[in-house]
Amino acid sequence: MTTARPIAVLGGTGPEGFGLALRWAQAGETVIIGSRDAERAQAAAEKIKHRASVNVKVSGMENSAACIAADLLVLTVPFDGHATLLKQLKPAIRSSSIVIDATVPLAASVGGRATRTLGVWQGSAAQQTAELVPAGVSVVAAFQNVGAEMLNADGPVDCDVVVCSDDPEASRIVRALATRIPGVRALDGGKLETARILEQITALLIGLNIRHKGHSGIRITGLPASAYQTS
Amino acid sequence: MTTARPIAVLGGTGPEGFGLALRWAQAGETVIIGSRDAERAQAAAEKIKHRASVNVKVSGMENSAACIAADLLVLTVPFDGHATLLKQLKPAIRSSSIVIDATVPLAASVGGRATRTLGVWQGSAAQQTAELVPAGVSVVAAFQNVGAEMLNADGPVDCDVVVCSDDPEASRIVRALATRIPGVRALDGGKLETARILEQITALLIGLNIRHKGHSGIRITGLPASAYQTS
Repeated sequence: MTTARPIAVLGGTGPEGFGLALRWAQAGETVIIGSRDAERAQAAAEKIKHRASVNVKVSGMENSAACIAADLLVLTVPFDGHATLLKQLKPAIRSSSIVIDATVPLAASVGGRATRTLGVWQGSAAQQTAELVPAGVSVVAAFQNVGAEMLNADGPVDCDVVVCSDDPEASRIVRALATRIPGVRALDGGKLETARILEQITALLIGLNIRHKGHSGIRITGLPASAYQTS
Repeated sequence: MTTARPIAVLGGTGPEGFGLALRWAQAGETVIIGSRDAERAQAAAEKIKHRASVNVKVSGMENSAACIAADLLVLTVPFDGHATLLKQLKPAIRSSSIVIDATVPLAASVGGRATRTLGVWQGSAAQQTAELVPAGVSVVAAFQNVGAEMLNADGPVDCDVVVCSDDPEASRIVRALATRIPGVRALDGGKLETARILEQITALLIGLNIRHKGHSGIRITGLPASAYQTS
């Protein structure tokens, strides 16, 4: 059962966004790749069409056009362009949209290390997003810990996705979307404020990747089966 | 193969410290339970002797005496007593000791929520410890994410232990100690500064425990087999 709403992946030409778009397209979802440059977005969409074994519904648009065409928006941009992009897209974001933020405020954004994070005044990139979106738009933090390499590889993804939002219904929709990626188990992580921990886990995983030459993810153990949502 | 050095678990009458002491005693290690009150420490040691199916080497002492008797020290105290205890124990800590810090600066320490952490000036409780121990003592951050319930239950622990330290040899010793707990895989997490992420993960796990009624832990996926140390 597909989500029945198009999903716009803003910054979808980058490796993380491309990987998410690929997985959702392969699962039968309607995906729009957003980019500053409509042509680059269309090229990425073509790449997904060639790579997918099935007939997929994927197109490419400039970011603002993608916002107008969809109300499930996924942010996968480097942190240094995060606030600027949101301010620029604000007029294009439809009210009652859900903005899914996968951004991690890595210190690499300002020339530091990818194993460290920046302090964000609001507590996390996702909470910064909540301050920048139009009224009536729900923000959901998710997908920070699913690495681009895992998403772009074949086979199931060995990672859980903890989903945080102050809007329980938006959280539910995003958990369903997460389970469309083979291997992913989605977990309700409660309120948006917890995004700060999810974002920092990415810095930990990047450090482990560098140290141990791998593409790490996390699994949450010890919870009752009912806590884990799968497709 | 045991560690061949006694392990003093300071604050070992609390559930986390007791669980670690129990697991190490069961694995054949020599364990000293430390407490403010020597009698409470001895009572906890007796409890471990009764509970363990094998002959175990466990005793109880006042915290300072435990520091004098051992050079592998494990800190499992609530954050509100953390700095005070370290200042008090400073004269008793032998130089070239290893202090293993499992402390998490939960906001619950100051009447807040256990799903939130406090900002620690040095970056983490473990980095605060590094500032408070005598010169020549190595600090290792580990065991924050292994819940007391998992440790005190029977059967293997379904959790990985990421170990962080600025002293690679101390990190190696602590990883070996971690693998003495059945089920645990130990991972070199690099420098002590990363402790701040490990500490925050505990707040995430506590939130998941409350929300989903479980006793959660984490597993790191996607790294080559050589990254994971087991017994």
